[in-house]
Amino acid sequence: MAKKPSKTRKYVDMRYIMSPKSVAIIGASEKAGKVGNAIMQNYVDVGFQGRIYPININAEGSIMGYKAYRSILDVKRSIDLVVISVPAKAVPGVMEECCKAGVKGIIIVSGGFAEVGEVELQKRVYDIAQKYNIPVLGPNCLGVMDTRSRNDTLFLPTFKIDRPKIGGVSFVSQSGSVGSSTLDLISGEGFGLARFISYGNAVVIDEVDLLNYLAHDKYTKVIVFYIEGVKRGREFIELAKKVTRLKPVVILKGGVTELGASAAHSHTASLAGSAQAYEAVFRQYGFIEAKNLEELLYFAKVFDTQPPSRGNRVAVITNGGGHGVLATDALYLNGLVLPDITAESKERLRKTMPKIVNIKMPLDIGGDAGEERFSAALDILEDDPNIDSIMSITLFQTPGADEKVADAIIRHGTARKKPLVVVSTGSTYTKSHTSIIEGAGVPVYDSPDSAARALAALLWYSNYKNKVVE
Amino acid sequence: MAKKPSKTRKYVDMRYIMSPKSVAIIGASEKAGKVGNAIMQNYVDVGFQGRIYPININAEGSIMGYKAYRSILDVKRSIDLVVISVPAKAVPGVMEECCKAGVKGIIIVSGGFAEVGEVELQKRVYDIAQKYNIPVLGPNCLGVMDTRSRNDTLFLPTFKIDRPKIGGVSFVSQSGSVGSSTLDLISGEGFGLARFISYGNAVVIDEVDLLNYLAHDKYTKVIVFYIEGVKRGREFIELAKKVTRLKPVVILKGGVTELGASAAHSHTASLAGSAQAYEAVFRQYGFIEAKNLEELLYFAKVFDTQPPSRGNRVAVITNGGGHGVLATDALYLNGLVLPDITAESKERLRKTMPKIVNIKMPLDIGGDAGEERFSAALDILEDDPNIDSIMSITLFQTPGADEKVADAIIRHGTARKKPLVVVSTGSTYTKSHTSIIEGAGVPVYDSPDSAARALAALLWYSNYKNKVVE
Repeated sequence: MAKKPSKTRKYVDMRYIMSPKSVAIIGASEKAGKVGNAIMQNYVDVGFQGRIYPININAEGSIMGYKAYRSILDVKRSIDLVVISVPAKAVPGVMEECCKAGVKGIIIVSGGFAEVGEVELQKRVYDIAQKYNIPVLGPNCLGVMDTRSRNDTLFLPTFKIDRPKIGGVSFVSQSGSVGSSTLDLISGEGFGLARFISYGNAVVIDEVDLLNYLAHDKYTKVIVFYIEGVKRGREFIELAKKVTRLKPVVILKGGVTELGASAAHSHTASLAGSAQAYEAVFRQYGFIEAKNLEELLYFAKVFDTQPPSRGNRVAVITNGGGHGVLATDALYLNGLVLPDITAESKERLRKTMPKIVNIKMPLDIGGDAGEERFSAALDILEDDPNIDSIMSITLFQTPGADEKVADAIIRHGTARKKPLVVVSTGSTYTKSHTSIIEGAGVPVYDSPDSAARALAALLWYSNYKNKVVE
Repeated sequence: MAKKPSKTRKYVDMRYIMSPKSVAIIGASEKAGKVGNAIMQNYVDVGFQGRIYPININAEGSIMGYKAYRSILDVKRSIDLVVISVPAKAVPGVMEECCKAGVKGIIIVSGGFAEVGEVELQKRVYDIAQKYNIPVLGPNCLGVMDTRSRNDTLFLPTFKIDRPKIGGVSFVSQSGSVGSSTLDLISGEGFGLARFISYGNAVVIDEVDLLNYLAHDKYTKVIVFYIEGVKRGREFIELAKKVTRLKPVVILKGGVTELGASAAHSHTASLAGSAQAYEAVFRQYGFIEAKNLEELLYFAKVFDTQPPSRGNRVAVITNGGGHGVLATDALYLNGLVLPDITAESKERLRKTMPKIVNIKMPLDIGGDAGEERFSAALDILEDDPNIDSIMSITLFQTPGADEKVADAIIRHGTARKKPLVVVSTGSTYTKSHTSIIEGAGVPVYDSPDSAARALAALLWYSNYKNKVVE
């Protein structure tokens, strides 16, 4: 593993890695099955707006309609980013050429370095980066996806992996497979992504650089990390201490058990620490820890859209009694409470709800509740000073729940007066509504339990921030 | 709440409630928006194979093409099941007529009984049932759905709730809303249902009757209960002790926290006990406890399809390194272990896998692994005496994962040599394969964590059964 200079070194400039105006793909090919073919095809397919230069040592004429070059030195125009996909042994030579050509950033997707014991080869990559002072992402990574500029180096077959829409969550993954499959999973959710970064062996750009970059990135509202080990642990947490005062950082740590750590070692040649040490550090430094992939999604979407929580009192509105019971359990088991609403709220609810509605928490507004009851209840509970956040259980199987109810929820959930999360359990009809609700910026959960976990995470971070930011 | 006779009473006969050859719908109507309209429409839509008699006090001619009657006494043919959907106050009179007409079972979907304080009215329903010794489900319930006979009394709009396919899981829900929304959620999964029963206020047929019925039902392989409170607690657990020796019973208990219990009280007029008491009892009597709706699904599908687990040693095959790291964590945190495979297995793996594959657990067979590697690894690990069950992490974003890989997994996962669960994280392309895998009888999970929880539940129950069944 290449040694890093002291902590005084500057952060790496990510601009040209992430949002280049021109890209050269070294190893570009028309041969299906080659990584360089998938990358080139992808740049064409996703509609990258900048210039594209395919480079291949055997190139003749053009590749996919773009004029091809045998060497980057033949291009003779300024190039922001180079994506290198050639055999590991050829990488140092190619890098030298790129640096001589004056490129501004390099992504090495090729594997075959420290992760398979080729430590010396990786050291040469590091040395060249140092010599030319050039930002390098990888090797052994998927690279990046930038939803706005459509700079997208993913070399997995396009039809196998959906792309998320544009949004405020940025996702950094040490593991390419966790990164790409989670990216695909996120595409099925209603929320959007700003940046995706798979950084592999981190020979130059590492966790510290990426955390710093995303902290200052105006498009990134929530930072999500999947990490196995952190190379500059001390600097990472010291920086995190500052970043978590500004933005929520959700972290999923692979290798929290000892044997997990040994699996991580064979995977990306990093050394994972013990579960206990990481967990304590995460809490102390303000990270929001996700215990699994599901929580990573639950937390990302609530932080992306909802305002901070001022306390642990969660009002529950429901159009299904049983879900109210499950929500009560889930809130208490996650350290939240069902509040007593004010006498004024009770009076207002009594005036607007039918007699059959029992004015207490959880507020079961009935299986026949439509837009009118949902809206009135949300209005009243938003005004109530005894309530810190709201869980609206909206079961779309009921006769009254329709697009008007969805609209009412969107109206309230995007006003950001108080955190609002929705629970909707179901399939086709339900999902046709929840994808609109979530797409508009109100997080939706399958169960009261997952919604309660999201609200608990939101509260924990809000409290942390209040404590550290005087 | 009506008192029950001593525990020596016979179990209620469910045959005519569940799979009748003829059904009368009292309150049937052509007026959209009426419950009786939805029920009648549903019988027509789902293709119920038996005779249908719409009954309405104002009926003239026919309803939806079926000859209509003003009273059940006018029908003059034998009727197995009556579904009653008239105002609560009219229910006792209607019941008397049904009993005089010699019907064999009654489902009262109407609400307005003990759950809103009308205890006396509910007592009258009970007394009539006793007098005529007739099976009664409800009141205040959704009734039943039988996937085989297509007897389906759900009165929620058909387009709002998908119906699961035919399968081996039977689901009993005290709450109509939890029942129907979970039924809808299950429809989006690959596994199928045998029976669904929503029993509401349980004036006659209660948890004890239903547990007994499903224990002896040949179509039911896994019993799943959502309950808030149990009326005949002692008899329920004594019966469960016998049933859980025969079949897995998954239970989700609403109201495990004290305040949850008070919500349950307002909901279905049952008294929920304390969380601790229930949890202890569940373990002692062999119930598999689901902590939330997600676990209910995770557990149902593994018990529906996979053989018992003989131990805690889980082999992990993966085509993504990071998922292997997460799986290792998830296994250890759920009380399972990654085993050392035998020298013979290592030798066989070395012969079949490319050199780049590191022969150890978790077995990362590479991002380019196709059918050949998956098949070989599954063969070898199935034979290995050091391995009790297998988690196959199959990320379909990778170039090698395709329908042949899916076929190989189905072939191994349905052979039932050892429990096999699949982890596939992703959206459109992934789900197009996983729905086939799961439909064929191999459970698929979004994350290593949910798969590990399912395997841990499978092992816990297998151990319980071994202990109690000498």
